[in-house]
Amino acid sequence: MTDSPSSPAATARRPGKRERLVAAAAQLLHQQGTERTTLADIAKVADVPVGNVYYYFKTKDDIIAAVIEAHTRQITTTLASIDTEHRSPKSRLKALVREFAAQSEIVAQYGCPFGSLCSELDKRAEEPIPAVAALMRLPIEWAEKQFRSLGRPDAHDLALDLMAAYEGSALLANTMRDPGILSEAALRVDRWIDAL
Amino acid sequence: MTDSPSSPAATARRPGKRERLVAAAAQLLHQQGTERTTLADIAKVADVPVGNVYYYFKTKDDIIAAVIEAHTRQITTTLASIDTEHRSPKSRLKALVREFAAQSEIVAQYGCPFGSLCSELDKRAEEPIPAVAALMRLPIEWAEKQFRSLGRPDAHDLALDLMAAYEGSALLANTMRDPGILSEAALRVDRWIDAL
Repeated sequence: MTDSPSSPAATARRPGKRERLVAAAAQLLHQQGTERTTLADIAKVADVPVGNVYYYFKTKDDIIAAVIEAHTRQITTTLASIDTEHRSPKSRLKALVREFAAQSEIVAQYGCPFGSLCSELDKRAEEPIPAVAALMRLPIEWAEKQFRSLGRPDAHDLALDLMAAYEGSALLANTMRDPGILSEAALRVDRWIDAL
Repeated sequence: MTDSPSSPAATARRPGKRERLVAAAAQLLHQQGTERTTLADIAKVADVPVGNVYYYFKTKDDIIAAVIEAHTRQITTTLASIDTEHRSPKSRLKALVREFAAQSEIVAQYGCPFGSLCSELDKRAEEPIPAVAALMRLPIEWAEKQFRSLGRPDAHDLALDLMAAYEGSALLANTMRDPGILSEAALRVDRWIDAL
């Protein structure tokens, strides 16, 4: 059993099985959390026979680790493309805030995909997944670099405040099922960045 | 079967079974989350025979609702005692921030007891528990009242920002297992209130 599809035509049609499993897992972990999601659920959404899942992932923790890896790649790509498209630290920070605000609807429905995953995995004191803290550190360290470029000696604190404002607003938006809580908080953070 | 203990002496010694079950459930939901906690776990920590649990709570959702009720009573009591002990809106807000900061160690270990519960229950789109949104609204509405007393027309936004700063910092502190993230954010929020 390999990840290569049965015919060259299939390559053009859809991603490989492993990729589909990770995408399905990311979606289900976001929508219903790690505890409620089974490997069978993931296989069904990915349209992969359950028996095949074990070829790629031995346990649910293996697939959670793959989802964290995928999120890490996604954040890294987003931050790199912001760096390319924007020159000034302020416009870079504001671009990140716009990325956050653009997710208001889905965040109000299911929470921040990274934040709610961290919150859930944080309950497992006996088996921590260190990659999840590294995932959260990525945007914080990137924001800290921008604030430092602005000459702020409190760059680290400002970066933490920025991420806390996003994660906290995401939680409130989700709990109240109100995307406006996140999108309006983003506007205030945008003005805060302008005023720095 | 009743909630009354077998002898009057026992009354002085320990709370009734229902109260012990709710306290044990609050502790376990905080430490290991709603999905991983079983009624048997709760009975064990509460030192109540599992068979007795069903007399008080038919399902895990019943006991989760009782925990939300207990949290609601606790927040209401805390806010009322702040109102009694402090006269000015600023010192009231700062007292709430001190309450948050005082929990830094336990929050870094297990997350905010309300926030992480909201985050977990938010994943259950099919069976929302409205009381959890009402629980989160309590400190927001109280803070909004204080900001309004300060003559701020943006009182609602400020209250949301205050709670988002706390919940977001609690999540980051928990993910990084670093209580300093929460206690130092509280100091910055304290200065922000002073500067209003």
